[in-house]
Amino acid sequence: MTLHRFFVESGAIAADRAVLRGDQARQIAGVLRLVPGDRVVLLDAGDEVELRLDRVTASEVSGAVVARRPAPAEPRLRLTLALPLLRGDRSEEVLEAVTQLGVSRIVPFTSERSVVRDLSLTKRERWERIARESAETARRGRVPQIAAPTTWSALFEQLETPVLVAWEEEREAQLVRAFARAVPALSLVIGPEGGIASGEIAAARARGARTVSLGARNLRSETAAISAVALVLALAGS
Amino acid sequence: MTLHRFFVESGAIAADRAVLRGDQARQIAGVLRLVPGDRVVLLDAGDEVELRLDRVTASEVSGAVVARRPAPAEPRLRLTLALPLLRGDRSEEVLEAVTQLGVSRIVPFTSERSVVRDLSLTKRERWERIARESAETARRGRVPQIAAPTTWSALFEQLETPVLVAWEEEREAQLVRAFARAVPALSLVIGPEGGIASGEIAAARARGARTVSLGARNLRSETAAISAVALVLALAGS
Repeated sequence: MTLHRFFVESGAIAADRAVLRGDQARQIAGVLRLVPGDRVVLLDAGDEVELRLDRVTASEVSGAVVARRPAPAEPRLRLTLALPLLRGDRSEEVLEAVTQLGVSRIVPFTSERSVVRDLSLTKRERWERIARESAETARRGRVPQIAAPTTWSALFEQLETPVLVAWEEEREAQLVRAFARAVPALSLVIGPEGGIASGEIAAARARGARTVSLGARNLRSETAAISAVALVLALAGS
Repeated sequence: MTLHRFFVESGAIAADRAVLRGDQARQIAGVLRLVPGDRVVLLDAGDEVELRLDRVTASEVSGAVVARRPAPAEPRLRLTLALPLLRGDRSEEVLEAVTQLGVSRIVPFTSERSVVRDLSLTKRERWERIARESAETARRGRVPQIAAPTTWSALFEQLETPVLVAWEEEREAQLVRAFARAVPALSLVIGPEGGIASGEIAAARARGARTVSLGARNLRSETAAISAVALVLALAGS
């Protein structure tokens, strides 16, 4: 039987005990109707912590930690995706897919040819919820971190190296051959609907980024983002 | 300068002349306001045909073929995607992405755990339009063929071999290592929201299909479809 899974804040688990409150307590007591003796899995910073409940009320649920192990579905590679703000729900579609695929961190940005230029607080909160729910669906051990929106000029100092920029004018360097399989971290940058300006490419290269091709077809930003993340994680074997 | 591109029916081009009518003539004459001497690209069964216009009216446009070459962005691999009918707009999202990525043929199907069970004529026409527009965006030389919806039991006889079925319970065979890079054709089968029943897997294996894993994370059908297509085409180098 698959145990129910809950992401917890650091601090919810102290030594061999854990306490859940708020929505999670309400869900365990009121919706799932679990009772003392039942088990749940808490996801804590990449670990799966198995908890045997000993106290269940609608306001507080607590129990004893019976096992802790690294979440087996969590990738070894730390992959950051720098994703332009896209029109309509397209950023959310990408966020959902790349969270399932295993991205560690998402950095939203705007650049010269960006059409959408800001991320409202409501949308930001929606993104956080999508990331959490998609990480649960995918049985991951972490929710990807969503950074504050930034600009192209401030983007590169926030990205772990190596940094690969998918660019439609790059013809030679294919993404599949552009990184070492055993690399511990990698950042991918995808351009907005209107593409990346050549001055922006020059600035990225000056900061050590490399341009890569995602193939001969012209991809929309969202397809490019999902494909590139899928490819990097599959090739890294994680 | 990038020339305007038009998919044409076989028969529109005869020897060294081509004639366009209907919407395409209206667009060339009325919207783009091209004149005799201008050039367009016709996409004919995987070839790019460059046409120099010599007669432009709102009802008929004709010209002389000045060059014909295989469309450079068209993949060498013939990739078929067997895609379950999905809820809401999710099938359309997949169709758009996999057309950009380079799929040759899409076979919609229903199976034991399918939630959506039919494809209306309106939706079918919408799919045709999405495939055509996405192929244009991607600068492909062909529009992927969309087959009539079928069932799991009739699916496998319609698929070119080898056939790989992405299955969440497969742990060993990873998609990245499951096919020869130089294969001329390949079919990928993705399961519906509720997964593939074990009896269905047995039936697929009896027809020579192999099950593959898309990795340790649990992916929604649409993410699985886009990722698998991206991976196969990138690894096939086409």
